[in-house]
Amino acid sequence: MKIVVDAMGGDNAPEEIVKGCILARDEYNINIVLSGKEQEIKKILDKNTTSNKNIDIINAEEVITNEEKPVLALRRKKDSSLVKALNAVKNNEADAIVSAGSTGALLSGGLLVIGRMEGIQRPALATLIPSMSGGFTMLIDSGANVDCKPEFLYDFAIMGSIYMQRVMDISNPRISLANIGSEKGKGDKLTNETYEILENSNLSLNFCGNIEARDILQGKSDIIVCDGFVGNMILKSLEGAVAALMGGIKTELTKSTKSKIGGLLIKPALRNFKNKFDYKEVGGAPLLGVKAPVIKAHGSSNDVAIKNALRQAKIFCESKVNPLIEESIMRR
Amino acid sequence: MKIVVDAMGGDNAPEEIVKGCILARDEYNINIVLSGKEQEIKKILDKNTTSNKNIDIINAEEVITNEEKPVLALRRKKDSSLVKALNAVKNNEADAIVSAGSTGALLSGGLLVIGRMEGIQRPALATLIPSMSGGFTMLIDSGANVDCKPEFLYDFAIMGSIYMQRVMDISNPRISLANIGSEKGKGDKLTNETYEILENSNLSLNFCGNIEARDILQGKSDIIVCDGFVGNMILKSLEGAVAALMGGIKTELTKSTKSKIGGLLIKPALRNFKNKFDYKEVGGAPLLGVKAPVIKAHGSSNDVAIKNALRQAKIFCESKVNPLIEESIMRR
Repeated sequence: MKIVVDAMGGDNAPEEIVKGCILARDEYNINIVLSGKEQEIKKILDKNTTSNKNIDIINAEEVITNEEKPVLALRRKKDSSLVKALNAVKNNEADAIVSAGSTGALLSGGLLVIGRMEGIQRPALATLIPSMSGGFTMLIDSGANVDCKPEFLYDFAIMGSIYMQRVMDISNPRISLANIGSEKGKGDKLTNETYEILENSNLSLNFCGNIEARDILQGKSDIIVCDGFVGNMILKSLEGAVAALMGGIKTELTKSTKSKIGGLLIKPALRNFKNKFDYKEVGGAPLLGVKAPVIKAHGSSNDVAIKNALRQAKIFCESKVNPLIEESIMRR
Repeated sequence: MKIVVDAMGGDNAPEEIVKGCILARDEYNINIVLSGKEQEIKKILDKNTTSNKNIDIINAEEVITNEEKPVLALRRKKDSSLVKALNAVKNNEADAIVSAGSTGALLSGGLLVIGRMEGIQRPALATLIPSMSGGFTMLIDSGANVDCKPEFLYDFAIMGSIYMQRVMDISNPRISLANIGSEKGKGDKLTNETYEILENSNLSLNFCGNIEARDILQGKSDIIVCDGFVGNMILKSLEGAVAALMGGIKTELTKSTKSKIGGLLIKPALRNFKNKFDYKEVGGAPLLGVKAPVIKAHGSSNDVAIKNALRQAKIFCESKVNPLIEESIMRR
């Protein structure tokens, strides 16, 4: 198996990306192709490993940034680390791609360069949210598509269910619709129509009805299905609240000597708690519905996060998620 | 001024509701009408005040619960505390209404009994979210309307702007659109069309463009405009994250003797922090766009929360928010 990695994407690229690839190669016995500035990559490899075995490089002199318009950047920067990595997958020189760079560019590239799977109208970004009960909850779509139709959300449910079974090892994963109330009949036109489709599906989906946004972190469902606009709002609200609270508590703790001492004593407890929510352990968010596994690693990924994203890409390939999705889509 | 209060609505009704009314009467010099079971209300009054001056009672033997279908309940329970309170406003026996009971029933009642203001197609629920910078940010609509059209969101912006100026005393309040990215052109059809309208409005609205959900708690805007489905998702995600984090940290703090001691030392700091997010200080969420001030107090309101909701209703009346909205709607 060969996985291509966008070595120049992410806040800590290329250093942490390359180091993560070395870790993954050593631990998972996979072949890695690094796409990016060859000289820089070589220097980091030389510094961090004695052997370049199973690591190839595709030289690419350009880098696509978060600030660029995705489609335009893909078209103009043919010599970018991302475009070259995407082409490697398209030309069957790699089985899967991992990038911590621009989400928009990776999503557009997955769609335009690698291409949609047959029968899938809208590939979706599936983010795995750590839950208070210890596991992960998938939020699909978490931002790739706006103005969704019910049939898109149906596909999100099918794809998410297969992924959670095969990659995250959850048997019969619970599927819920993000909604403003838990009873049937609540919500907007889109959720009501999607509810009907999911309830009457001929596939063996474990549809559990609606879920309110306040219950998402409680691990009451394995898969939360929604329009990408709504998914983005949920995800960013959660992120914003966690950041605001952790920051706010820290500020309060510095306000008196007593609380400063208390703060020192509870530091390990706070760290434990923070680790629960650690994106680095998940790896990344898969883009489901394209012809090859595409994993979006967190923008601030360090070497461990990249290693885990590569592990995820490996299981994604091995567990035949895509053939299973194709087969379900044909039967739906 | 006379404000009618649903004495039977809310988790702590009628005890805390009645006590809150006594506090408000004493502090703000307003007339209060309590709608609910007369005998129960009288007992609580007798226990908590020596004088029933400026407090009237409308006897109502029924109570509408959170579990009932709003419109059906309003139709069937003519002798409920909520329906009788709504009728008091409709018949000009009271200037405004406050309820901590079923949100759905109050919203439907505002619409069906009190009625929409002329020119307003969709009244909206405006929730005031405490921000990390100390003030409040209004989220409008936070759940009254799904499947909104751009012109509804335009009205939300107008109504929110007037309320924040007049009741919350913020001059030239900043208005933002909840969106998946900050640049113009991001988002779904609804937000894009609303953006155009807000940008080209002939009213002097302080439109500041898009805001991402992660920035909502940072106080970067005074008013966040969105569809009610989206608003509900944002609000419940924030609530869920705060609850999960506070709960999670508490659990971690009990895991070792060291963290237990630390936990005791930081208790005041945590309490300070929690107070920042205290809904009791805000009062409640106004339903904007109906003919009289309607305030939804938090379901778990205690006496202080009710007192503050009454203060808010009083300012809502005095500051002529509704005539100003009418005037703006006519000019838009």
